[in-house]
Amino acid sequence: MDLRDIREPADIKGLKIKELEDLSQQLRDKILEVVSENGGHLASNLGAVELTLALHRVFDSPRDKIIFDVGHQCYAHKLITGRQEAMVRLRQHGGASGFPKLEENPHDAYGTGHASTAISAALGMARARDLKGTGEHVVAVVGDGAFTGGLCYEALNNLGHDRTRLIVVLNDNQMSIAPNVGALSNYLNYMRTSRAWLELKRKLSAFFLKVPLIGKFLYKLSQRTKDSFRNFFIKDRFFSAFGMHYIGPIDGHQFHSMEKILKRAKRFSEPVLVHVVTQKGKGYEYSEKRPWSTHGVNPFYPETGEPRKTSSARSFGKAAGERLVQLAKEDPRIVAISAAMVEATGLGPFQAAYPERMFDVGIAEAHAVTMAAGLAVAGMRPVVALYDTFLQRAYDQVVVDVCVQNLPVTFLIDRAAMGGADGPTHHGVFGAAFLRHVPGLQVYNPRSIEEMQAMLDHALSHDGPVFIRYPRSESPGMQELPYAGFTPGSWERLTPAGELALVATGPMVSEALKAREILAAQGTKAQVINAASIKPLDAACLKDFTLKNMPYYVLEEQALAGGLGSAISEHCVQGGLRLPEHIFALKDRFVTHGSHEELLKECGLDAPQLAAEILRRREAIA
Amino acid sequence: MDLRDIREPADIKGLKIKELEDLSQQLRDKILEVVSENGGHLASNLGAVELTLALHRVFDSPRDKIIFDVGHQCYAHKLITGRQEAMVRLRQHGGASGFPKLEENPHDAYGTGHASTAISAALGMARARDLKGTGEHVVAVVGDGAFTGGLCYEALNNLGHDRTRLIVVLNDNQMSIAPNVGALSNYLNYMRTSRAWLELKRKLSAFFLKVPLIGKFLYKLSQRTKDSFRNFFIKDRFFSAFGMHYIGPIDGHQFHSMEKILKRAKRFSEPVLVHVVTQKGKGYEYSEKRPWSTHGVNPFYPETGEPRKTSSARSFGKAAGERLVQLAKEDPRIVAISAAMVEATGLGPFQAAYPERMFDVGIAEAHAVTMAAGLAVAGMRPVVALYDTFLQRAYDQVVVDVCVQNLPVTFLIDRAAMGGADGPTHHGVFGAAFLRHVPGLQVYNPRSIEEMQAMLDHALSHDGPVFIRYPRSESPGMQELPYAGFTPGSWERLTPAGELALVATGPMVSEALKAREILAAQGTKAQVINAASIKPLDAACLKDFTLKNMPYYVLEEQALAGGLGSAISEHCVQGGLRLPEHIFALKDRFVTHGSHEELLKECGLDAPQLAAEILRRREAIA
Repeated sequence: MDLRDIREPADIKGLKIKELEDLSQQLRDKILEVVSENGGHLASNLGAVELTLALHRVFDSPRDKIIFDVGHQCYAHKLITGRQEAMVRLRQHGGASGFPKLEENPHDAYGTGHASTAISAALGMARARDLKGTGEHVVAVVGDGAFTGGLCYEALNNLGHDRTRLIVVLNDNQMSIAPNVGALSNYLNYMRTSRAWLELKRKLSAFFLKVPLIGKFLYKLSQRTKDSFRNFFIKDRFFSAFGMHYIGPIDGHQFHSMEKILKRAKRFSEPVLVHVVTQKGKGYEYSEKRPWSTHGVNPFYPETGEPRKTSSARSFGKAAGERLVQLAKEDPRIVAISAAMVEATGLGPFQAAYPERMFDVGIAEAHAVTMAAGLAVAGMRPVVALYDTFLQRAYDQVVVDVCVQNLPVTFLIDRAAMGGADGPTHHGVFGAAFLRHVPGLQVYNPRSIEEMQAMLDHALSHDGPVFIRYPRSESPGMQELPYAGFTPGSWERLTPAGELALVATGPMVSEALKAREILAAQGTKAQVINAASIKPLDAACLKDFTLKNMPYYVLEEQALAGGLGSAISEHCVQGGLRLPEHIFALKDRFVTHGSHEELLKECGLDAPQLAAEILRRREAIA
Repeated sequence: MDLRDIREPADIKGLKIKELEDLSQQLRDKILEVVSENGGHLASNLGAVELTLALHRVFDSPRDKIIFDVGHQCYAHKLITGRQEAMVRLRQHGGASGFPKLEENPHDAYGTGHASTAISAALGMARARDLKGTGEHVVAVVGDGAFTGGLCYEALNNLGHDRTRLIVVLNDNQMSIAPNVGALSNYLNYMRTSRAWLELKRKLSAFFLKVPLIGKFLYKLSQRTKDSFRNFFIKDRFFSAFGMHYIGPIDGHQFHSMEKILKRAKRFSEPVLVHVVTQKGKGYEYSEKRPWSTHGVNPFYPETGEPRKTSSARSFGKAAGERLVQLAKEDPRIVAISAAMVEATGLGPFQAAYPERMFDVGIAEAHAVTMAAGLAVAGMRPVVALYDTFLQRAYDQVVVDVCVQNLPVTFLIDRAAMGGADGPTHHGVFGAAFLRHVPGLQVYNPRSIEEMQAMLDHALSHDGPVFIRYPRSESPGMQELPYAGFTPGSWERLTPAGELALVATGPMVSEALKAREILAAQGTKAQVINAASIKPLDAACLKDFTLKNMPYYVLEEQALAGGLGSAISEHCVQGGLRLPEHIFALKDRFVTHGSHEELLKECGLDAPQLAAEILRRREAIA
């Protein structure tokens, strides 16, 4: 069976085990091909090939609903549901998304991207099914990593209330993005390693029953503690406490047993959890050995694992982590917190230097922030490192735990810009808007590593919450610009005064400088101002614009509503100051996936469009 | 021992059981007195009196840290930590807060208000202790209701990682705000009712050991499944899966056993959960019989339970629930979701009429929203009813699950104004700011019941997310105003055109009308415009202001940053339109507790101050 002939799940229903194994190899080859070409999530997708085929053979998608939590394991699913052409351009502008998306294909039952949503969504779909009486199966496929998120627990607790028919497939590859941490991880490990012991218990049980007197007692026992007793013998105690049936652990690379178990799961009229053990990176030796570092990858050469292109751009996260190591040497109060992304947020060196001061809490951003508040109350100086889009998950904790109590928690917010290939669920473009109105906090978008480090120094000596937001990499040219130091509420004049000003923040400083060149070539002199301090604003600079009758434009790679231009507008309305001529920012729609350059262009935020639009506006006025 | 002589916890350390029982009665009398006078949380506080005394006798606050989750059970704690005078004015402006607050008293180890934060905060404090080597005890007191929140689970999972010494007291009163729902609730119920069975098992175990052959097997068994086996006999399987020691259930109204157990808990070097069973409303018959309806109360006569004053104001939530019942009759796709507040959000009648279409998910707002998204994907029309401040807990789900997928989920957002007596953690003043920038959604702040109902009709026929935000009660006079109907993006001109316009939203419409009277008396004619449609804005109206050169002021009882005035400013900057003269809104600080009138005044948002400020500004210009 040639993978190219598989256009929909029906095409794999009749295959024999041998053919499935062959198809699995083809899927792995294809995944390796498209990911090595385009970047993406590699190890988790390689591990879920057989599981995906088994699911599509046992269930009848799209009638039955299969929901992939996070979506880091949906590539095989996409490849057998009519998207092989789109997958060639995986995560490219116009190509297939790296995540399930409702609008992409009817087999994508629910769109994901952030962890731990699948059981909640599945429960909604199951309840809709019950009300409508349509009878389909609803299957949530959840990695053990995503299971550390509280949302899973809220869903399980609710599911246990009326025990709606629902199948949860726990895809246990023993790690989330990094090796998994926490009690549940320990528990699953215990479950996996206790097969042998299960056998012993079975024998023991059989033996008990042969002893007449004890057999009677055991009978009574099993009558009165049905649940406890059953668990004692099939070993699960965690999931059964939620009223779920538990089956497992089973080998997620063996079709026969997996399909048998999934068919059995279909017959339950109550919630059932199927514990499937898979190997992250399965079938690609380079990834098998490095499941962690091959979770999410840039384009690489599959033969060697080497990246196709190396970037000389400096990483904000890496530099933040390095600075933190230095600062922590002097200040024993400094501790760091990560939500399953120690390496990705640049905290690896900190963890190595101060393992006892580094807390990886799993995919649990809300807990990360509240625990940081607890640390701060107790006199520590916690630094929470998260991606901008994942900080969304801790918004309430930012408000109630950190800001209401005005605690000195420092937030290192990475990927605070359009994220590129990961698309709308991953762009870090709302941070300024969902933070700015919270009383007492400070928000900074540095343009350069040096500025970020100065902000970090400030944050760790400031008695209140500070959010430092930056993209993955420093923009070209920033390192070469002279840097005069950072003062909260003070903007940096990067070029001499002109006939207009470009007030840019974060990664848009680089575009502003380019736009300035284009404008200069057209005879228009523009001053570029680095508005890194979003809260507080530079009130003196804004007053100066008014006094000098200086037209100015705001440039930001984030949502218009609630962003920097919004803050400036509010300030100027309240102070009777000159308003911006225009705010260049993201309009009211979600941005798709694509390269950063493509997206900037699509959103009208690249230097040529910025310059052209400014000239057009000036001509319209003149 | 007279309660008045208790100024700090040390004063109760030496008391005998009899004296403690007497003191408990005095505390109950005092709680009843202050709550019946001021309103507040009654039933939960009455239930936690003995537990609070026991905690303060066994632990050494403020050196040991006692963290009350949510804070619905902190009144006895406040009364024995030097705040009896402040408690007389509980929840009044200038009086004691209804919640623990860092700045109020050194015995308030951590400020709370929203559910499920205590274990996370406690873990932070315990880790700080371990790093500093200070050795104190950290105790998180968590109600069974708060345990339905995912944040507890994230904390337990993380706690299970390194098993830091920490004591969690589960105050199990068998309900949260309403009777508790979900798997955990079922589980706790099972634990409570299985005392008798525990006895049987003990006897059985003893018997086993007498049989030599079996004793040997049992010994092996207990060696190899230490955890399982221990749980089997002390019955817990849930908490032990998190690596916690479990003790309980114990009677939370018996000093002797409670103190014995708490002392035992102190000796553990690992996390331990003490399961304490209390009775909500204990000692006040009226409340014992109505634990649910006496959870949070307005001032009442303690003899009868009757309210001290009845309000004639119409409740938005109640009216929303009634309308929903009507609409659901015609449209079987309509379902409703509440997070443990079916009655409080007005959904009681809906639950009665359509029990199978009403989902109470427990204190789990994030799950409520993602499950709603799942229901919507499956073709239903879910309505999620939450308080504005609790919607903060589902911000990420609003963005990623609902808005990225553009799903038709309707949000009925109650208490979307300054909440009064509950203070900074409960004011619903950030909703517009944290929603407005999310692409594709609509935000409405109705002034009246009729308008809200029209918005609800619209929302349920609109193919995208709609947020309808309103305070607890309709403002006076709104019902009498003629109402012409609601159109998205269209503002209501409530009075004839004048020399300036007051653009008000939600509850500020009422203040704007009053301000108009004051202005009229001073010879200034103002038009009042009801800007109920925050997103979309009324672009035509704003253009009209520009064309007519009409000065206008924005009035909103919500955060300035990111609010209506902010939205208008952005729109006018981008469109080259006339900007507002001034935005009257909440400045960049958290608002304390107090009556709505006091807070309006404190924030400069009452009609006299509004009118005076407008006149002052006009004179300054003239």
